[in-house]
Amino acid sequence: MAGKSKILVIGGTGYIGKHIVVASAKEGHPTFALVRDSTVSHPEKSKLIDSFKSHGVTLVYGDLSDHESLVKAIKQVDVVISTVGGAQIADQLNIIKAIKEAGNIKRFLPSEFGLDVDRHHAIEPVVSFFAAKAKIRRAVEAEGIPYTYVSSNGFAGYFLPTLFQQNVTAPPRDKVVILGDGNVKSITVREEDIATYTIKSVDDPRTLNKILYLRPPANVLTFNELVSLWEKKINKTLHKIYLSEEQILKSVQETPFPGNLILALGHTTLVKGDSTNFEIEASFGVEASQLYPEVKYTTVDEYLNQFV
Amino acid sequence: MAGKSKILVIGGTGYIGKHIVVASAKEGHPTFALVRDSTVSHPEKSKLIDSFKSHGVTLVYGDLSDHESLVKAIKQVDVVISTVGGAQIADQLNIIKAIKEAGNIKRFLPSEFGLDVDRHHAIEPVVSFFAAKAKIRRAVEAEGIPYTYVSSNGFAGYFLPTLFQQNVTAPPRDKVVILGDGNVKSITVREEDIATYTIKSVDDPRTLNKILYLRPPANVLTFNELVSLWEKKINKTLHKIYLSEEQILKSVQETPFPGNLILALGHTTLVKGDSTNFEIEASFGVEASQLYPEVKYTTVDEYLNQFV
Repeated sequence: MAGKSKILVIGGTGYIGKHIVVASAKEGHPTFALVRDSTVSHPEKSKLIDSFKSHGVTLVYGDLSDHESLVKAIKQVDVVISTVGGAQIADQLNIIKAIKEAGNIKRFLPSEFGLDVDRHHAIEPVVSFFAAKAKIRRAVEAEGIPYTYVSSNGFAGYFLPTLFQQNVTAPPRDKVVILGDGNVKSITVREEDIATYTIKSVDDPRTLNKILYLRPPANVLTFNELVSLWEKKINKTLHKIYLSEEQILKSVQETPFPGNLILALGHTTLVKGDSTNFEIEASFGVEASQLYPEVKYTTVDEYLNQFV
Repeated sequence: MAGKSKILVIGGTGYIGKHIVVASAKEGHPTFALVRDSTVSHPEKSKLIDSFKSHGVTLVYGDLSDHESLVKAIKQVDVVISTVGGAQIADQLNIIKAIKEAGNIKRFLPSEFGLDVDRHHAIEPVVSFFAAKAKIRRAVEAEGIPYTYVSSNGFAGYFLPTLFQQNVTAPPRDKVVILGDGNVKSITVREEDIATYTIKSVDDPRTLNKILYLRPPANVLTFNELVSLWEKKINKTLHKIYLSEEQILKSVQETPFPGNLILALGHTTLVKGDSTNFEIEASFGVEASQLYPEVKYTTVDEYLNQFV
């Protein structure tokens, strides 16, 4: 395993974290997952932890609010990947403080795994949500900690099984609600592929102090293209209900948190096109499918087959 | 208007804030709303601002990240009510700092308007979300700022029009998904009533440094009672699908932020019963419908009539 960095994942039992822990272990990195004492007895999380153990992952007990536990965990590894959830973004200042004290970290990946929080046309409450992530970026940079920010865009496992129709468990077969005119390109990436690209980047000098964008070409689609792909698979034309930007703004305004955050994230992605409406420049970013052409990612087309 | 405090609302164009601004003005308080320059040109917010003006509300331009603007706004009033959204909870430290510098505030109501964040049995990501609100409470107390925390429980306008069924626009007429066994009591309060009780409390010595709980007796219902009430109105029996706590925990685990936050808030409220499972003790709290029996609140029964 010479040359493979030791990796600590903080938030490893979370939605994207669990894939990153497994990808890290499979790729041959000595892998550590920070868990809370209470996690082990959580009915769902305990199953995950068993699976981690079977992959040879080392559990480290600690907590974001326990500075000593963080420093101790961080001193054992080379790379820290944070996958903490959206309600814990600000708490990552504690990780930064611990990394600073430990002094041995070669790369830190704070919890991003969405759009580029420095390049968007979002409305509230996304503005504030992104600002919290941007504040973590600025703190990382101010401390001179080597970093990679992973802009992974949409989660396929969240977005595709329903085509962003809420509270349903399969893609629509009659009607589909479309935010905006459906002609804006957005991106979804399978969670396992997000994890693979993320792990590839940690020892890569090309991603040092850069944003790693995930834009696998076959997965850059307009919503209309996505619906059309689905219609061909089920051999049926759906009734399409287009929501204007004005209707969406009204709906965001009339929905309390966190429902308004879901709607406003849809607006940013599907109306404003913030996952695709800028060029990646070498000064700040690199694109994952170009850096790692050997990764055979799951296309949206392939992903949808399971629901036919 | 002698004796009526001057009130500044921060977050006044938000979901609950707009009702509080209007209630304050109607109650005869000289009322100020902090707005951002950008708010005035927002298509939905600009309508609200016109309505504020028609109620005699004074607009004050400023921003949470602009310390001088906050201090200047705060110096003009006696009471500050924050109704900032869930993505801006941590930013309220800026308000606390400005209140401290201004030195003239008789009462501060930080943004709460949900469950009691110090008394719950929540799971993540609610644990972290509540911890952020609790951190603001501790900062207020550490600075010795006179406060009232409004635990208003569920928003009627969010919860009742759909009976917590997502992505529908009317209560269900065929089947209803119930979290847990449906026998746990929870509370919903109409937004206008939340605003009325909140404004009543600001000059009341009985609510000083206390939690104001909104538990209007007719609105304390189990989910089964709520469904039964609705069934009687539409004269139809719904098919009931009960989700066990284990199924809910699994679903929370498999949903990314912020969808998992909505589910986990449902768990806390409807499975754990955290809005009703403790007694209000005089040492920390008071109950609004007891303090203000003159308020004729809207009952859940009355509220549901509009959807029949």
